[in-house]
Amino acid sequence: MLMSPKQPRRDWDTGEEGSLIGRGILDEMENEAQHIPFFTKLFTLSQVVGILSVVLVGVWCGYFRGGFAWFNDPTLQFNWHPFLMTLGLVFFYANGAMIYRGFRSEKKKKLKILHMLIQLSAFIFSIVGLVAVFDFHNKSHPPIPNMYSLHSWVGLCTVILFACQWLVGLLTFLFPGLRPSVRAAYLPIHQFFGLFIFVGAVASCLLGLTEKAIFSIKPKYSALPTEGILVNVIGLALILFGGLVVYLVSHTKFRRQTTEDEVLLTDTVLE
Amino acid sequence: MLMSPKQPRRDWDTGEEGSLIGRGILDEMENEAQHIPFFTKLFTLSQVVGILSVVLVGVWCGYFRGGFAWFNDPTLQFNWHPFLMTLGLVFFYANGAMIYRGFRSEKKKKLKILHMLIQLSAFIFSIVGLVAVFDFHNKSHPPIPNMYSLHSWVGLCTVILFACQWLVGLLTFLFPGLRPSVRAAYLPIHQFFGLFIFVGAVASCLLGLTEKAIFSIKPKYSALPTEGILVNVIGLALILFGGLVVYLVSHTKFRRQTTEDEVLLTDTVLE
Repeated sequence: MLMSPKQPRRDWDTGEEGSLIGRGILDEMENEAQHIPFFTKLFTLSQVVGILSVVLVGVWCGYFRGGFAWFNDPTLQFNWHPFLMTLGLVFFYANGAMIYRGFRSEKKKKLKILHMLIQLSAFIFSIVGLVAVFDFHNKSHPPIPNMYSLHSWVGLCTVILFACQWLVGLLTFLFPGLRPSVRAAYLPIHQFFGLFIFVGAVASCLLGLTEKAIFSIKPKYSALPTEGILVNVIGLALILFGGLVVYLVSHTKFRRQTTEDEVLLTDTVLE
Repeated sequence: MLMSPKQPRRDWDTGEEGSLIGRGILDEMENEAQHIPFFTKLFTLSQVVGILSVVLVGVWCGYFRGGFAWFNDPTLQFNWHPFLMTLGLVFFYANGAMIYRGFRSEKKKKLKILHMLIQLSAFIFSIVGLVAVFDFHNKSHPPIPNMYSLHSWVGLCTVILFACQWLVGLLTFLFPGLRPSVRAAYLPIHQFFGLFIFVGAVASCLLGLTEKAIFSIKPKYSALPTEGILVNVIGLALILFGGLVVYLVSHTKFRRQTTEDEVLLTDTVLE
């Protein structure tokens, strides 16, 4: 590759002699300091909208759809499905993705383990949420067919992709011994599929809301009773949350900066 | 702002003396040359999947939903709605967004005008598509309510955002006289909302497919007849198309590189 003699290979190559923290990093830190207040505002807004979405789904299932149960009533068992999918695959998942930017001063190693654990709990919530809907379908009289709708196809693909993403992420970034170049090459793929799965999760929620609204709102969805408005507002809140999260996670100016320690331990910089 | 004396302010500041094309640009060009074959493969795949989606929607509306009409039959007038929204708001819109990367050797000014014109036709298709569905609702016996579903809320918000985006884009990037710094500041916002609107359009399509499948597939969607499978496959094709387009448009390594002319005309570099 052609390389200009004047052009720094990495930010920290521009450091003054005798200083480990290069000018490039100082620039970055100043740059970061400029953007942090804006990041904090948007991050707070995302948390408010995310919690609001989960609470509204809770109100919808808990009040309008009759509440929650497991063994006693398959109809009420179903209600765990929208609640757990929104809580796990949307809210927890998003916070797992944002953790590197939200807690930027923490050590990278700690953040990686936290990221893995939050995504693991997001995955467990999703699996329990899936069991709830399959149980509801199978126990209904007559049984409701499984896996016929676009919602079920998109939703299951999303959960399967999520399982693969989690496993490959664990093997690549947390198991010791993998070459930094392999980790660096996989990172953008992990980030892209991370966002793709998240957008798929939000899209699945919108499809599920539409299905349930058409099937279950009485007298009918098209008369737009309070429950219909609530369902639509949940949909818009999820889209707003999705837009905020994608913006916060993908914008390079909000990126967590490398610390001096991580410059020394190049293995961890690349992750 | 702190600025290292060794760090180049822009890529072309690293140029050797007497050469207008700096080393930075040479590096970029070499870098670009590496990525072009991969870009071309993915771009071709996106076109195949995009055209397939439009054709499948055409087959669905033209064959399974009874074909197309305008004044004579409101039910068949409806069929223009899914077809024109997919053609305009998804396929044309995506190609308008990808034009800078797909035709990277064309002059920037020409691409900007083409981008504006393609998005204008995408918008016109969408408006005709909206007229088709409102007409169908209003002319039905009894009339079908408008704007009650999540699909209608998300879809209309998307089209309104698109109208704003087009207008602000025209005023900012094509009207002469605006300061380059203002254009440069607006560009990332334009890019973010461009992708947000596109994802909103794909999500609206999935919601619309789900609604229509539940309301119209006979004997019923849950028995998953051929039409049900077709609707789900259209949904997956649109998601695949959406994922490819977002990847192609957002990945910095596929970015169109600045030409020597544009370096001289700094006004156009920033757009």
